[in-house]
Amino acid sequence: MNTLEENLRLWLREDIGHGDVSTLLTVPPGTMGKGRFLMKEDGVICGLGVVAKTFNIVDEKIEVKSLIQEGEAVKKGDVIAEVSGDLGKIMGGERLALNLLQRLSGISTRTRAFVNEAKGYKAKILDTRKTTPGLRFLEKYAVTVGGGQNHRFGLYDGILIKDNHIKAAGGISKALELLARTSPHYLAVQVEVETLDELREALGFNVPAILLDNMSTETMAEAVRIADGRAKLEASGNMTIERVKEVAATGVDYISAGSLTHSVKALDISLKVF
Amino acid sequence: MNTLEENLRLWLREDIGHGDVSTLLTVPPGTMGKGRFLMKEDGVICGLGVVAKTFNIVDEKIEVKSLIQEGEAVKKGDVIAEVSGDLGKIMGGERLALNLLQRLSGISTRTRAFVNEAKGYKAKILDTRKTTPGLRFLEKYAVTVGGGQNHRFGLYDGILIKDNHIKAAGGISKALELLARTSPHYLAVQVEVETLDELREALGFNVPAILLDNMSTETMAEAVRIADGRAKLEASGNMTIERVKEVAATGVDYISAGSLTHSVKALDISLKVF
Amino acid sequence: MNTLEENLRLWLREDIGHGDVSTLLTVPPGTMGKGRFLMKEDGVICGLGVVAKTFNIVDEKIEVKSLIQEGEAVKKGDVIAEVSGDLGKIMGGERLALNLLQRLSGISTRTRAFVNEAKGYKAKILDTRKTTPGLRFLEKYAVTVGGGQNHRFGLYDGILIKDNHIKAAGGISKALELLARTSPHYLAVQVEVETLDELREALGFNVPAILLDNMSTETMAEAVRIADGRAKLEASGNMTIERVKEVAATGVDYISAGSLTHSVKALDISLKVF
Amino acid sequence: MNTLEENLRLWLREDIGHGDVSTLLTVPPGTMGKGRFLMKEDGVICGLGVVAKTFNIVDEKIEVKSLIQEGEAVKKGDVIAEVSGDLGKIMGGERLALNLLQRLSGISTRTRAFVNEAKGYKAKILDTRKTTPGLRFLEKYAVTVGGGQNHRFGLYDGILIKDNHIKAAGGISKALELLARTSPHYLAVQVEVETLDELREALGFNVPAILLDNMSTETMAEAVRIADGRAKLEASGNMTIERVKEVAATGVDYISAGSLTHSVKALDISLKVF
Amino acid sequence: MNTLEENLRLWLREDIGHGDVSTLLTVPPGTMGKGRFLMKEDGVICGLGVVAKTFNIVDEKIEVKSLIQEGEAVKKGDVIAEVSGDLGKIMGGERLALNLLQRLSGISTRTRAFVNEAKGYKAKILDTRKTTPGLRFLEKYAVTVGGGQNHRFGLYDGILIKDNHIKAAGGISKALELLARTSPHYLAVQVEVETLDELREALGFNVPAILLDNMSTETMAEAVRIADGRAKLEASGNMTIERVKEVAATGVDYISAGSLTHSVKALDISLKVF
Amino acid sequence: MNTLEENLRLWLREDIGHGDVSTLLTVPPGTMGKGRFLMKEDGVICGLGVVAKTFNIVDEKIEVKSLIQEGEAVKKGDVIAEVSGDLGKIMGGERLALNLLQRLSGISTRTRAFVNEAKGYKAKILDTRKTTPGLRFLEKYAVTVGGGQNHRFGLYDGILIKDNHIKAAGGISKALELLARTSPHYLAVQVEVETLDELREALGFNVPAILLDNMSTETMAEAVRIADGRAKLEASGNMTIERVKEVAATGVDYISAGSLTHSVKALDISLKVF
Repeated sequence: MNTLEENLRLWLREDIGHGDVSTLLTVPPGTMGKGRFLMKEDGVICGLGVVAKTFNIVDEKIEVKSLIQEGEAVKKGDVIAEVSGDLGKIMGGERLALNLLQRLSGISTRTRAFVNEAKGYKAKILDTRKTTPGLRFLEKYAVTVGGGQNHRFGLYDGILIKDNHIKAAGGISKALELLARTSPHYLAVQVEVETLDELREALGFNVPAILLDNMSTETMAEAVRIADGRAKLEASGNMTIERVKEVAATGVDYISAGSLTHSVKALDISLKVF
Repeated sequence: MNTLEENLRLWLREDIGHGDVSTLLTVPPGTMGKGRFLMKEDGVICGLGVVAKTFNIVDEKIEVKSLIQEGEAVKKGDVIAEVSGDLGKIMGGERLALNLLQRLSGISTRTRAFVNEAKGYKAKILDTRKTTPGLRFLEKYAVTVGGGQNHRFGLYDGILIKDNHIKAAGGISKALELLARTSPHYLAVQVEVETLDELREALGFNVPAILLDNMSTETMAEAVRIADGRAKLEASGNMTIERVKEVAATGVDYISAGSLTHSVKALDISLKVF
Repeated sequence: MNTLEENLRLWLREDIGHGDVSTLLTVPPGTMGKGRFLMKEDGVICGLGVVAKTFNIVDEKIEVKSLIQEGEAVKKGDVIAEVSGDLGKIMGGERLALNLLQRLSGISTRTRAFVNEAKGYKAKILDTRKTTPGLRFLEKYAVTVGGGQNHRFGLYDGILIKDNHIKAAGGISKALELLARTSPHYLAVQVEVETLDELREALGFNVPAILLDNMSTETMAEAVRIADGRAKLEASGNMTIERVKEVAATGVDYISAGSLTHSVKALDISLKVF
Repeated sequence: MNTLEENLRLWLREDIGHGDVSTLLTVPPGTMGKGRFLMKEDGVICGLGVVAKTFNIVDEKIEVKSLIQEGEAVKKGDVIAEVSGDLGKIMGGERLALNLLQRLSGISTRTRAFVNEAKGYKAKILDTRKTTPGLRFLEKYAVTVGGGQNHRFGLYDGILIKDNHIKAAGGISKALELLARTSPHYLAVQVEVETLDELREALGFNVPAILLDNMSTETMAEAVRIADGRAKLEASGNMTIERVKEVAATGVDYISAGSLTHSVKALDISLKVF
Repeated sequence: MNTLEENLRLWLREDIGHGDVSTLLTVPPGTMGKGRFLMKEDGVICGLGVVAKTFNIVDEKIEVKSLIQEGEAVKKGDVIAEVSGDLGKIMGGERLALNLLQRLSGISTRTRAFVNEAKGYKAKILDTRKTTPGLRFLEKYAVTVGGGQNHRFGLYDGILIKDNHIKAAGGISKALELLARTSPHYLAVQVEVETLDELREALGFNVPAILLDNMSTETMAEAVRIADGRAKLEASGNMTIERVKEVAATGVDYISAGSLTHSVKALDISLKVF
Repeated sequence: MNTLEENLRLWLREDIGHGDVSTLLTVPPGTMGKGRFLMKEDGVICGLGVVAKTFNIVDEKIEVKSLIQEGEAVKKGDVIAEVSGDLGKIMGGERLALNLLQRLSGISTRTRAFVNEAKGYKAKILDTRKTTPGLRFLEKYAVTVGGGQNHRFGLYDGILIKDNHIKAAGGISKALELLARTSPHYLAVQVEVETLDELREALGFNVPAILLDNMSTETMAEAVRIADGRAKLEASGNMTIERVKEVAATGVDYISAGSLTHSVKALDISLKVF
């Protein structure tokens, strides 16, 4: 796992390579100036610290001044931050800064919308492992900024027994028996079920958490009644913004959506030198 | 710039970390099996080679067999590839393989749609530098698989003089005079203009390529008449799928769209063990 | 986190640097030969695969043939493996191979002794985070080969609330209230207690696992009676081999010992060319 | 060869991974505090600078104040250093700092004991290449802090002809003839001998240094008489603390012991927040 | 591509390895002092910033004071810079600093000589890709300091169709037809020709730049007449300092010489402590 | 220290970056072909293995067939190797392969000339630390291929007390006294002297090797008489090919020349596809 700084250096190099030719040829070295990050649409902002870090790696003398808070909802036309320093260097970091800011804000914006739909119910909005390769940490951070909660970070820090495990183990009971004997005491077991029968089978093993995969809203409501608080229930599969409220109303504990991170709509933000 | 293999190793580690606990606890070591990549919606496939490489890094004995060609359009329900080998290892690579395949196919699918809209016109569809940090090479590859063409890969391999350069240089003529004297003979100069007056100013310098930024379709049509073949024209800014045909009809040479890569809708594909 | 292969390369370079001068000057290139790994004392062997991998990185044509199984108990005088190939290359990998084999076998040997002491009781032997920097994964593997079980791999995959957290949070109840509201559903909470009062306080929060820190054997026995199966109990702190049986007899679920990994006695093994 | 800083970053990541969950959930961000490094047994301290560097990588604002000197002998109950700053960050570096401090101090403590046994004789205490993979530089540093002297750092900076070289070269004379013609003028040759006959053979070649391997104390005394100052003599093989004084008394120049680094007993030290 | 700082760290480690033994054994730690960079021959200086960066990586407290400007022509006996700080540390960085300074100054000195020969003509002096592996960026920088101009940095940022491409494509026209259809609009095409017939063929395709490979001065003069300004012409192949003036006099736009970087004579400079 | 393979990958990326545009646009994928390495001047060849490794990293199916032996002297017009495989891939590795082959052969060629001049005398030709940053290992290898011998590889594997150490230590005797007490037994001490008085001072300390710095040939002859075999003598400073024979005739043991590696004239070699 790279650190954020290592990643930013790698990403800057991806864009700048051996040098920013356009700037070298047209902007006199040492030209100082300022730029404004301007909202071209409404949304929730995430990534202000990442933007500052990006510019500081390019040139530690560049100053970034945030005019709003991380996680704040802003409007089209708002100026959310200012950057000042060597203009040539600012242009070297501009694209990466915007690419990150737009993506992370896109994630926070959508997460906030999901959270708002679930308001009044106990259901928390969760992310998944369907993140962009190399950006999992940042994208999961953006989910929390949007008001969501993180599911496990990888295969190493959580036990989630899915359909493919169950098939490979030879059935849900077989898998759960193995787990009961060998699973570490610091991890909680979660099992994926696709039917109410499987749900009952899992409950029989006192599994603390169960993922309801691709069920209709009615079936999930029935699952909540059957579980009756004996296990945490997570609704998953095709969780569009349109379904969030009705799913939350069933009484599930969690709603997880891959689309929070795998199908991001970048928030439109520009950087204008003035 | 990392190689693809270095990136895949990094991304696998992001997901697997010190080990895939769920699989270790439920799937007996050495269990062999097969899985099918199944389309959950229609689209253009990109990333079959990347998927094979991913699994081969996890375990060189895993075999991936593609049932279609890279760039082929497929339908919901189609099986596009099969993977066979050690089931526990397959599950270790599954998420990364799917995350890449879904994203790259999403890009190729949208690019193909843009290309189809422009059919019959000379306009080629271009990508931008608005790619996901760390994935630029892969995402630009997906654009070509979709039928688009690549714009420059970074700040280092192309000269594009944009509004911020012009402001920093002190005007479009100032910038172009500097360029005429110093720009390398192996790079072609492109300048961004926002008005028809700026277009005329740029044409006066015999600039080989001009980017029309955020113009209305009518203004672009007028720009094409003014340029009259003296420079390649690229339409850019807010190029949604709805506008592609009318913009192509103006006679521009290129249409570039950041949304091809910055706002990807992952194509829905699953891996089912059988 | 480095992969094992990356680590082996790094470690080989630490020893070999720009070249093995002694061998270059005295062993004619291409001299082929064989060597035997010979036990100089009794113990449990761990690291046969690592030894093979080490030599294969030096020269993929070197062959390592194990004469026993990983985890097998062997006697002084036993030959446990043979290596054959280019003698100069074998000598280049010899020291690293032995350093790893001796250390890992030392860990497995001690762990096996602990496990044997606890035989007949339910207590499992656990490792800790008191491992050698850079070798955590290998050392935890050696613990399992010795018959022990792994505790969490790092701060990222388990929640263990220790004295310093409790002090910083302002008391055990304060910390547990925070946790009850915010802890992820895929991790199980464990709390460290130093007195029976603290144990009772923790049990009041339905914490699934409790670490009994530095208690006398009698106090631990009392703790088992108080908990009465409501939480898993881990005995920790000064767990020497002499105490293992009596502590296991109290009925605790786990006994963890830092000395398994932080104070290893390397098992004496030599490599003799013949 | 990694730098110390690169290693510390790698080792911190091994422990912290994507985050210190326990601290994130129970310690309010920004909580400031102090901790004391407290001796739980007597010993010689090594690693104070490494501890400071570790915490400064986690957070450059953490301050570490040493209350004793590197290499100083301390007693159970002594406070040897204080750390102050952001408590959550301190807990993130705590385990690595302690793991290094305890190991290095363990090495210095044992080395000091060896040195004290040899006091009054000319014999210097040497380390070997039997160090922990990845920690050779730090462990050899700890040997010097304990009063010992370093043997070569790797295969690249010293010529030591051992039994396996001699076997591969076809005899001790064969090996030494090769060396006489080709060895670089900036390295001194050392040869390992197992018998007094071999010693005489080596002396015949004017080898400047000879390693006496696994000889009895009496044989070593005889070796010293035979060499009569013509070569530096190093006693090696099974050099336990009990034998050091009698071996030193034979008049050898060096005593080397692998156990200084391969079988470390970590010195017991704790960090207590107050 | 490594950053300069990453390279300097790598190169320092190549020279210093686990430590500077001579200095450790003879220079008391903390000895402060000064050194002067003294010219042993005339030349153009390049690398003052690199020298400062090198010493600052070794020890950030070392100060380097330049007494001349980058690119200045100096005489034997001139002192061009002073370095002050911890003497032991200065000696650790000395060799790398000198190796870089001497090489880069050697390149700038020769480039300046080429540029002076071409004075009065429009021909610019270009470098090639015949640079030292790993030092391309630095060596190309030294060419600009000497007054030359850079050709493309690699295969990725320029199109140069050479004899081997033409052979593989099946002729010059075949290659140029392919290019006319597919080459990106931000790169300018350059073609290598060996005869005047090939020149005419290339001109027929309106190629913006043509490389005249290994032609006699007379042939090049004829080429200039034929091209008559329709393409930029680059003279290449065996461009020794003796030929520069006559080649420039033919009217070519560029003269490129591999010898600027592949056969550098290091400028003689020493560092004397005083 | 990077491995050769790591370096080759780094250097290929420096040249190829995100792709070889010229080849991609003009050479149909999968075009197979052959190329010949052709001598454009006489010289000694070094780097055949490196060339093969370079191409195999680009594409493991490319075959390189050497027609001569490493270290062989060849004539202008000779074909020394053939390469066959995917032509586009071959062109991707061509420049790096040639840059290395030409440089290393240049070093071996000059070294061979030095060695030939010293023929009949005992003086061996040595390299120095004046190598190209990042290429020390390869360049020192080329020296041995040319018939020379290596001096130390860095500051870590040899003790050479130079003028700056002596100045910092406070005189030659001061430095040598320190060394006599503390230098490791596996390294031989060498001291640099500039006058015959300093030579006598050094001999008084029984230093095994002495470097005669920048002395006239007559003074060196006198030095040989004074030393009378008590120390190995190395002639250094301004050792041009013209002086080698007369210096060798003085009876010194070694002649070292920085110009072997710091001022390389690349041997002219081309790769022609046929």
